[in-house]
Amino acid sequence: MTLGVGVIGTGVMGAEHVRLLREETAGAALVAVCDADAARATAVAGDAAAFTDPLALIADDGVQAVVIASPDATHAGLTLACIAAGKPVLCEKPLAPSADEALRVVEAEVAAGRRLVTVGYMRRFDPAYAAMKQALDGGAIGAAVLLHNIHRNAAAPDWFTGAMAVTNSFVHEIDISRWLLSAEMTTVQVHAAPGGDPLLITMETDAGQIVSTEVFMNAAYGYHVHAQLVGRDGTVEMAPPTTTLTNRALHHGHQWPENWVPRFRDAYRIQMNAWVRSCTVGPPVGASAWDGYLATAIAEQVVAALATGARTALSLATPPDLYR
Amino acid sequence: MTLGVGVIGTGVMGAEHVRLLREETAGAALVAVCDADAARATAVAGDAAAFTDPLALIADDGVQAVVIASPDATHAGLTLACIAAGKPVLCEKPLAPSADEALRVVEAEVAAGRRLVTVGYMRRFDPAYAAMKQALDGGAIGAAVLLHNIHRNAAAPDWFTGAMAVTNSFVHEIDISRWLLSAEMTTVQVHAAPGGDPLLITMETDAGQIVSTEVFMNAAYGYHVHAQLVGRDGTVEMAPPTTTLTNRALHHGHQWPENWVPRFRDAYRIQMNAWVRSCTVGPPVGASAWDGYLATAIAEQVVAALATGARTALSLATPPDLYR
Amino acid sequence: MTLGVGVIGTGVMGAEHVRLLREETAGAALVAVCDADAARATAVAGDAAAFTDPLALIADDGVQAVVIASPDATHAGLTLACIAAGKPVLCEKPLAPSADEALRVVEAEVAAGRRLVTVGYMRRFDPAYAAMKQALDGGAIGAAVLLHNIHRNAAAPDWFTGAMAVTNSFVHEIDISRWLLSAEMTTVQVHAAPGGDPLLITMETDAGQIVSTEVFMNAAYGYHVHAQLVGRDGTVEMAPPTTTLTNRALHHGHQWPENWVPRFRDAYRIQMNAWVRSCTVGPPVGASAWDGYLATAIAEQVVAALATGARTALSLATPPDLYR
Amino acid sequence: MTLGVGVIGTGVMGAEHVRLLREETAGAALVAVCDADAARATAVAGDAAAFTDPLALIADDGVQAVVIASPDATHAGLTLACIAAGKPVLCEKPLAPSADEALRVVEAEVAAGRRLVTVGYMRRFDPAYAAMKQALDGGAIGAAVLLHNIHRNAAAPDWFTGAMAVTNSFVHEIDISRWLLSAEMTTVQVHAAPGGDPLLITMETDAGQIVSTEVFMNAAYGYHVHAQLVGRDGTVEMAPPTTTLTNRALHHGHQWPENWVPRFRDAYRIQMNAWVRSCTVGPPVGASAWDGYLATAIAEQVVAALATGARTALSLATPPDLYR
Repeated sequence: MTLGVGVIGTGVMGAEHVRLLREETAGAALVAVCDADAARATAVAGDAAAFTDPLALIADDGVQAVVIASPDATHAGLTLACIAAGKPVLCEKPLAPSADEALRVVEAEVAAGRRLVTVGYMRRFDPAYAAMKQALDGGAIGAAVLLHNIHRNAAAPDWFTGAMAVTNSFVHEIDISRWLLSAEMTTVQVHAAPGGDPLLITMETDAGQIVSTEVFMNAAYGYHVHAQLVGRDGTVEMAPPTTTLTNRALHHGHQWPENWVPRFRDAYRIQMNAWVRSCTVGPPVGASAWDGYLATAIAEQVVAALATGARTALSLATPPDLYR
Repeated sequence: MTLGVGVIGTGVMGAEHVRLLREETAGAALVAVCDADAARATAVAGDAAAFTDPLALIADDGVQAVVIASPDATHAGLTLACIAAGKPVLCEKPLAPSADEALRVVEAEVAAGRRLVTVGYMRRFDPAYAAMKQALDGGAIGAAVLLHNIHRNAAAPDWFTGAMAVTNSFVHEIDISRWLLSAEMTTVQVHAAPGGDPLLITMETDAGQIVSTEVFMNAAYGYHVHAQLVGRDGTVEMAPPTTTLTNRALHHGHQWPENWVPRFRDAYRIQMNAWVRSCTVGPPVGASAWDGYLATAIAEQVVAALATGARTALSLATPPDLYR
Repeated sequence: MTLGVGVIGTGVMGAEHVRLLREETAGAALVAVCDADAARATAVAGDAAAFTDPLALIADDGVQAVVIASPDATHAGLTLACIAAGKPVLCEKPLAPSADEALRVVEAEVAAGRRLVTVGYMRRFDPAYAAMKQALDGGAIGAAVLLHNIHRNAAAPDWFTGAMAVTNSFVHEIDISRWLLSAEMTTVQVHAAPGGDPLLITMETDAGQIVSTEVFMNAAYGYHVHAQLVGRDGTVEMAPPTTTLTNRALHHGHQWPENWVPRFRDAYRIQMNAWVRSCTVGPPVGASAWDGYLATAIAEQVVAALATGARTALSLATPPDLYR
Repeated sequence: MTLGVGVIGTGVMGAEHVRLLREETAGAALVAVCDADAARATAVAGDAAAFTDPLALIADDGVQAVVIASPDATHAGLTLACIAAGKPVLCEKPLAPSADEALRVVEAEVAAGRRLVTVGYMRRFDPAYAAMKQALDGGAIGAAVLLHNIHRNAAAPDWFTGAMAVTNSFVHEIDISRWLLSAEMTTVQVHAAPGGDPLLITMETDAGQIVSTEVFMNAAYGYHVHAQLVGRDGTVEMAPPTTTLTNRALHHGHQWPENWVPRFRDAYRIQMNAWVRSCTVGPPVGASAWDGYLATAIAEQVVAALATGARTALSLATPPDLYR
């Protein structure tokens, strides 16, 4: 019953997935690792098989399921190869660099006739977001009317461009807002502070709800993701993400992480366990290829709306039956 | 050196001002109370003089300074009478029901040549807002780029209409945002949830800052005002407004007040002490007539922007030298 | 109806009382200030009368009530002079350096036949303690069974000796615990960390309740007073004493004050307003001379118990009828 | 490399261990389940082997490691059987019902010459306790001087007797306090509220530190475990154990669990993963048999000290070399 998993890519996320499969995932065995750098592949693989060609890893008989954590530009092509091979795949976000390419993955999966793709929008497995959704769906706060999101990075990487605040960071809020509200976005609008950072992005849903998101790439003080869901009877929001509070040098409080890894470590672990389990006993879990398409397609249109500053109606494909 | 103060109006706020003057204000004596209902005026006045005609109170020689807490429609007229009498006046917000009328008060004060009017935007004296401004002005969070405001009422009064969410409630955020940021608003835009409640109002300042405000008149769970100021180096926000935390019946936390009075009791007290002191030793404190005009003028244009849904440039008068 | 108040002593607390009387107290006028240093007395007095002899201030006809904030050793003698003059007095804690001397003040007040003395155990007026007592007395947490107190100073003054942790600091917890629980202490016991700091002091009440207090004179990180009251149905404790929370440099939280003044500023103000009001319209407020005796008498026996380490039954005088 | 694990007992904890091994533990396979009730054993076992005789499970060749979650009275005997079989064992606390029996387990392990026993004091794996220990050991708060523990249950089970507050509940604080402080307890003393609940238990360590623990079996409001570690430079304590905060019906805050399972779910999972890993790649993790002996031995002497009320020096065996 142990699932043989191959991991493509050994960067920050690839290495974390390898660690999770080895140390914290039930019912899985790491059987293959791929990296363009053969020495790196071998070093990370340990007693698993090492590959430099990702297509060879996907084709390998011992590999029953694939994790894709290679550079973004390769995601769509490798996911298509997994679909062709009939193997379940957990692909890091984004599913593709453009909505058109993402839609081709969707179409291939539809043609294959069954769900094989999970996109790694791991926030759906974060205990805080899960508790918020449970509160909403359980009726604790009444009908949702407004969602406040905050997404702050300590500092944008050097290679970040303005659009990446949307296509790389804000895509998380697109996915998690759709998931939390069980609703689809219909309009977007962007206000930008001087220099284009932070952005304040306002979306509306097909149920008339408002989704407000601050995306601040250079918030300086630390990595901080927050969400508050406002309902007609009450609200639910994230508690401070810490296990301890410290008093020291006139200060009371807690520390922020410098990046997203510590904040979402549990989410990645829970996602991996749920995905491995879904590969063996089903049903599919997490964000689908269709969810991946929508995140990318909406992000593209947010970038366009950033240029005009106007409230913009979204134009999106029709969801295939496979995802209903 | 004791200041003789007369209070016009004995409703919720008038009665609170009377109490503050009697029990918690240094250097003041309550010398007169006015209410259209003579019995009510006498009952509240105690050993102070009772009036039914507010103009008679203003004219009375024992009254050195006036607090106006009568119905909104009377504010501008009574404030003009105080200016004419040369007596300092603390007028409850709003200064006037329309921007035009507010501007007439401004013009009268300019003509009088000296500052006599304080408008009771008491949040400027709230310890939490004051600490936020001190943090910003002291450089603790770097240059301000974004301000998140939340203004939730448990339930709108029966007589509330949609526009009142703006003209009665949101005016507070207009004033406090200008004060916190030391900036002027240039554009407004409104997103509305189904039924027009809550509103999400976005303003931009002449320094390019973004001010986002949720106004929720029927938030159900309690009265809750929150603000978070985001700077380039950090943020400062209100702490939970409570002195104690309770564990009981599986619950940890604190209670919300049902309305604004407990939340801003300290602000009203500090405002009254500061105003009384300013009447005797100057300089003027709190929101000026000009600030009162701006709050009302911006609110009017937010109401118009609510109808169009579009980002709207504000059109405002030029500030007279008296307020610089 | 304005009460003429004279203040003896112009140190940290004397200067604060002068400020409170001038700026934040209703119905009072500062009419006299006394300091052994004539220049200092004159400087602080402003347009009030300046004295170098405290007995002269007490005797002065314009002085209707007296605040004693001179060195501890003078408290009992000056309080006796106020009783002799028949003038209400607010005396800073401790009432006297020994239980015997405190008892003489009690006896003098009993002989005078009416309550004239308030001892400045200001915590009784702190909004957090007041809300805790209200929660207990209102039945919100059931019958009290345990009280956890924490009393931490950033650093003990140079002139502090071991016993002062008890006689100068812990006396506050003796008074506030009696007041919160409406109970009398019956036993004490002390555990001491290496070097005698911190102390963990356990008291039992006549209702069988346990009072546990950490007194840490050199807690390094700041001035921090905390209390949690445990009842059979729930608990109530102090919330963090701050109006704002800050994110900066990877840190979330609030700052501690360096000493007690900012923490208890509101308590001193409320105490002064309540005392001034009680001087004109009664009844007596705050800690009585008897309360002052008990705090000092229990502290003396805690010092003795510190030496033995054993659980020690308290030996206390019988309360005169005047204080029932 | 997969470890075949057998679980003895299918009560609350046994069922949870079975679930953890199936769903959240890496490198382990559930191969056997034992319960005196054959039908229950079969139902829980699924496709694993079902046993009614625990000794048969321990002897089974497919069972490489054993989890003991049967009734307390059986722990020592079954652990001895595992030692005899040379198989690693994770035994739920307590290790034995008496210090003498616990010592026999220690002696058997010493005779076996290697560490096979882990006692399930799972708090050592709780992220909050782990972060506190890391803060202390990393120097963030200076040398530890005092530890405040709070251990509150909503309600004691019907079958609870007074001593069980110590032997069943307080044993957790004995173990975690030793572990946090890396110190040994030397004295104990107990104060009891009316009815014997809550208890306030004070221990001292061989480094002169003070450990204060409230044990309240009928705290009514929920299950709540808290710890604050006080050092010479600062303090570290548990943050509220919640991922979300809710506003509803005038209330802000979070919910307490009704018992320990949700609070320590992560700790049990991390313990199980660490123990499985230690069984295959070593070294031993968690509380040893010697730790288990000390918890039980100290608890016995706390029960005695409860009867006398006096500060009591602990009398404990000498640690064998195996545990150094």
